[in-house]
Amino acid sequence: MSVVHVFGAAGFTGAQLVALLDAHPHFSLGQITARGDAGARLSEVAPEYRVDRRLAAPDVGAVTEGEYAAVCYPHAEAAEVVSQLVDRGARVVDVSADHRLRDPAAYPAVYGFDHPRPELLGEAVYGLPELNRERIRGARLVANPGCYPTAALLAVLPVMGQVVDVVVDAKSGVSGAGRAATPAVHFSTVTDSVRPYGVFGHRHQPEIEQELGMPVVFTPHLVPVDRGLSASCYATFAGASPTQQQLLELYRDRYRDHPFVEVVEAPPGMRPVQRTNYAQVFPAVDPPSGRLAAFGVIDNLMKGAAGQAVQNLNLMEGRPEEEGLDGRP
Amino acid sequence: MSVVHVFGAAGFTGAQLVALLDAHPHFSLGQITARGDAGARLSEVAPEYRVDRRLAAPDVGAVTEGEYAAVCYPHAEAAEVVSQLVDRGARVVDVSADHRLRDPAAYPAVYGFDHPRPELLGEAVYGLPELNRERIRGARLVANPGCYPTAALLAVLPVMGQVVDVVVDAKSGVSGAGRAATPAVHFSTVTDSVRPYGVFGHRHQPEIEQELGMPVVFTPHLVPVDRGLSASCYATFAGASPTQQQLLELYRDRYRDHPFVEVVEAPPGMRPVQRTNYAQVFPAVDPPSGRLAAFGVIDNLMKGAAGQAVQNLNLMEGRPEEEGLDGRP
Amino acid sequence: MSVVHVFGAAGFTGAQLVALLDAHPHFSLGQITARGDAGARLSEVAPEYRVDRRLAAPDVGAVTEGEYAAVCYPHAEAAEVVSQLVDRGARVVDVSADHRLRDPAAYPAVYGFDHPRPELLGEAVYGLPELNRERIRGARLVANPGCYPTAALLAVLPVMGQVVDVVVDAKSGVSGAGRAATPAVHFSTVTDSVRPYGVFGHRHQPEIEQELGMPVVFTPHLVPVDRGLSASCYATFAGASPTQQQLLELYRDRYRDHPFVEVVEAPPGMRPVQRTNYAQVFPAVDPPSGRLAAFGVIDNLMKGAAGQAVQNLNLMEGRPEEEGLDGRP
Amino acid sequence: MSVVHVFGAAGFTGAQLVALLDAHPHFSLGQITARGDAGARLSEVAPEYRVDRRLAAPDVGAVTEGEYAAVCYPHAEAAEVVSQLVDRGARVVDVSADHRLRDPAAYPAVYGFDHPRPELLGEAVYGLPELNRERIRGARLVANPGCYPTAALLAVLPVMGQVVDVVVDAKSGVSGAGRAATPAVHFSTVTDSVRPYGVFGHRHQPEIEQELGMPVVFTPHLVPVDRGLSASCYATFAGASPTQQQLLELYRDRYRDHPFVEVVEAPPGMRPVQRTNYAQVFPAVDPPSGRLAAFGVIDNLMKGAAGQAVQNLNLMEGRPEEEGLDGRP
Repeated sequence: MSVVHVFGAAGFTGAQLVALLDAHPHFSLGQITARGDAGARLSEVAPEYRVDRRLAAPDVGAVTEGEYAAVCYPHAEAAEVVSQLVDRGARVVDVSADHRLRDPAAYPAVYGFDHPRPELLGEAVYGLPELNRERIRGARLVANPGCYPTAALLAVLPVMGQVVDVVVDAKSGVSGAGRAATPAVHFSTVTDSVRPYGVFGHRHQPEIEQELGMPVVFTPHLVPVDRGLSASCYATFAGASPTQQQLLELYRDRYRDHPFVEVVEAPPGMRPVQRTNYAQVFPAVDPPSGRLAAFGVIDNLMKGAAGQAVQNLNLMEGRPEEEGLDGRP
Repeated sequence: MSVVHVFGAAGFTGAQLVALLDAHPHFSLGQITARGDAGARLSEVAPEYRVDRRLAAPDVGAVTEGEYAAVCYPHAEAAEVVSQLVDRGARVVDVSADHRLRDPAAYPAVYGFDHPRPELLGEAVYGLPELNRERIRGARLVANPGCYPTAALLAVLPVMGQVVDVVVDAKSGVSGAGRAATPAVHFSTVTDSVRPYGVFGHRHQPEIEQELGMPVVFTPHLVPVDRGLSASCYATFAGASPTQQQLLELYRDRYRDHPFVEVVEAPPGMRPVQRTNYAQVFPAVDPPSGRLAAFGVIDNLMKGAAGQAVQNLNLMEGRPEEEGLDGRP
Repeated sequence: MSVVHVFGAAGFTGAQLVALLDAHPHFSLGQITARGDAGARLSEVAPEYRVDRRLAAPDVGAVTEGEYAAVCYPHAEAAEVVSQLVDRGARVVDVSADHRLRDPAAYPAVYGFDHPRPELLGEAVYGLPELNRERIRGARLVANPGCYPTAALLAVLPVMGQVVDVVVDAKSGVSGAGRAATPAVHFSTVTDSVRPYGVFGHRHQPEIEQELGMPVVFTPHLVPVDRGLSASCYATFAGASPTQQQLLELYRDRYRDHPFVEVVEAPPGMRPVQRTNYAQVFPAVDPPSGRLAAFGVIDNLMKGAAGQAVQNLNLMEGRPEEEGLDGRP
Repeated sequence: MSVVHVFGAAGFTGAQLVALLDAHPHFSLGQITARGDAGARLSEVAPEYRVDRRLAAPDVGAVTEGEYAAVCYPHAEAAEVVSQLVDRGARVVDVSADHRLRDPAAYPAVYGFDHPRPELLGEAVYGLPELNRERIRGARLVANPGCYPTAALLAVLPVMGQVVDVVVDAKSGVSGAGRAATPAVHFSTVTDSVRPYGVFGHRHQPEIEQELGMPVVFTPHLVPVDRGLSASCYATFAGASPTQQQLLELYRDRYRDHPFVEVVEAPPGMRPVQRTNYAQVFPAVDPPSGRLAAFGVIDNLMKGAAGQAVQNLNLMEGRPEEEGLDGRP
């Protein structure tokens, strides 16, 4: 058993992560921390998980070398504690956005703060196992991807380098906005409506662009769904288009050894992936025009956050990638 | 044209009331006030109504004798301004709870404050037109009923005095909780769930009991609905039970002259009354047991609040009861 | 008063159309027909509208010259009755898809039937008033646009001819699928999910392409919403991009005289247009890349179907365009 | 490993049951049958469970003595196959309603058919483990309770015999209505509404009355929820009322040894029990009036159907009651 400390365990992602680790056959929980809710029991904050552990104030000094830590803080608040944890010899999965972008200059522009440890940006491995599995295994610091980038990247990775003019139109459930009670997540605002936001300015756009190595247009939408994220991606083949059958084969080959990506044969809804770490992807080509439409769906708190963090921890620890993640919904 | 001032126009009820009055053929809007949102336009706060008027800080001193005022403040905050308005000679519909209970002693117990003008409690007319139409016409001060009591009372009024052991199990849409963004109205809390609350302690229970003249058991439930309120009422006939046909006739007779109550022949859903001032009621009797089940549905912001306020203003002004309320959804 | 006959009045669109015409100050209802539900009252089929009229079997022979008719049949079923109505001298709004495409050869390919009166395709005016207002005024036959094309076209019309590579990602409420109870509209299938469908094959794609005069990529999505449709459109300026301010001015100028299109300053949700004939559009430009994102929202049964039909009838009859459509939700 | 055959595996309950058994550490699946969908794979019908098994036409003759069978047919269709299975020496959990009522005379009146094997009604054990655990262990035939009775009985069992005048107002998610696409489950009918139904005539009323040994008033409501069932029960203490603290203790004592019933301290929403076999119950007393309000929530497909069937199979087989049911949602 190896210990994992979870910093920021009272939010939607942190609580889901604690629940996964609490049931994990290999990892054991260390600290589970909260700042506002310190002293409460997790079962009061997130009763659906039935994890009866007390939330404590964070104590980085109690983390010892070789232990694991996952940091589920809001962006700009994680960088400092991640830095301290790395210095103490912990292996860290930063579930926040604070180490996803490799260019230090991006942080002031995109996230509004100067990064305190730019050299860690060069070291951090972007934690999408379907892209960087081997590098994750040996990493000291893994930057857990954003929810939108996870779905979008999984949808287009197999044709990366073959397509141009990528447009990503994504739809996220409300849990992606976190537990804070704001007017934007009031039931009467969200229900029975769809709303685009963050047009040409969402922080996940440069993250997708970094990993695809090209500019993209990205628009997220809020939909009246609790958990689930759907990315519809459009692009054009730069060269000759494959047939639909060739395209499906290409996708199947790309993901053959990746247990959490299911290549399906029709545009996927959210149901089959909700509360699981699975992604479903479906590519379609219109040969006359050379246009591609590729769809990816995930559960935003699982493959889009906490589940992917466990997948990364499994890889870092040399465990089977699916361990503790194979439960059905 | 008579002037109506609306105090507290930025909340769900106040904005709906302004929208109704703005389109009303007889009334014209005076002040529309807000405290937090003063200076904003109503079309920014509640764009769906397309009422392009500026919210102002309240100015009771500008209200003149014979004008109308509707007060849409939270309970305990309305009593003082209602008192001032009455003193200035205005005719007031208090949409808050501050004049619904006739017993001054109830206010500390139920609402947590000492009523500043107990003599107004004796004067205020309980503004359910189906119960007090004539008294409303001449009233200086009308206490607009609560949303739950409106639905429950309309469901059981026709058999009042004939039944005992009343149980009211009610389900309200989330807009009934108001515009404030609290954890209880977070989309991820409300969606895909039903939750009882206020068991044996909801403030609408004494209001229902006052009007029915007997104790009731009342439990509200929050349901994943925006607008709409359903009250399922159970009771026992004290004497001989009517047949189902006799019961329906009794209800039809009771509401024959009341344009906003529709007696229907099957248990009503919320759809046909949403965004209207209509109530639908359906009574059922189980003759062997003498048990009654009576159902009432309303739109909580219309017949349960702002629409009923307009209905009361129409009566006070001697206008047709339906004026400005006959629009379809 | 002029008479309008409504063929196919029991579906979602037909019932909404009858409700609008029943309350219209100028038009009066003639036949309101249904095939399966003939004999029923509309208030039984669609109680929310409170229109107590009997549905009858269709009788085209009773339509006389100069009367109006609206045909709300499924595609492939409307063409024949439209043909007969035109021959009888009626002025017809075909709310179905049967006269939207001008190319007769498109019908077998797109809709699976040979069009019985190809010459009517040349005569029919595509009934988007914001595009063809003058031609609609004099038309004998108006082809009421599809719901998706209405939202998409309104979003991009102001830059038509200036942009290339148009991608339309649209999200529709379930009422767009009609009243028939199919597995695809089962609550347990739709709720808490988003699902793309009709990839590279939806019938509204050639309709959008016809009106824009260029190929587009179009993907519809089903969302857990009752009424409402949102189209997010992406394109690239062929020449120099305008600034955001210039773009907004361009849109405002384009729609200055069109009462039902509101150019807003942020990405629109569905709420402000639900149950109204309004569209809201918002364009955004990313000057560095020359990319455009343009958003349009409508109520699929109003501006996307029945409301637009009334708008067209108003124009055909020389009435004010907003007549009977200015009600608030 | 013992074999369980599942008859009727393509419905919501049957598919959930197969998924539970497929992951069960002790039981192995035998036949999984469907009539309409025979030949399809379960992963096509219910992809969220990822059980890649083929549905076959039922073959009762292939069931051998000592094997288990669960029958998930609609009422009136199960009795015959249950009878055959029992005759073959199988141990059967009838998930349908066909053996829940002990009085043969009730079947024509309540379910509209004459029971083919009245003697089995006397033998069948009502499969609520919290009531009949010991008898279930030895049973040859277990009648799995209805979803509404399960929630209602768990809410009031601890005070059975102490209370009178029981009223049950229950709210069910739509999955309780099954997979068939009917107008009643059309998204546009269900969403944003609550609808009572089956007033004084629902088939679960006699089932609740049988187990409580007294008449009850029972009204189910359809709510816009996928999975989840909430029962709000009202009654009056026949003798002296307990205090709230005594009442909670009474409930805690009653369920101390029952792992799936959680006595909570506030009215429960559906979230903490969805997709689990847990029930949460909360009792409240109003000492002045002697009135009881008791609330029970379950997942209608788990504790209300398939999960409870597995709980019963565990008991029949002498396994730990929670086996295969302890997964988190």
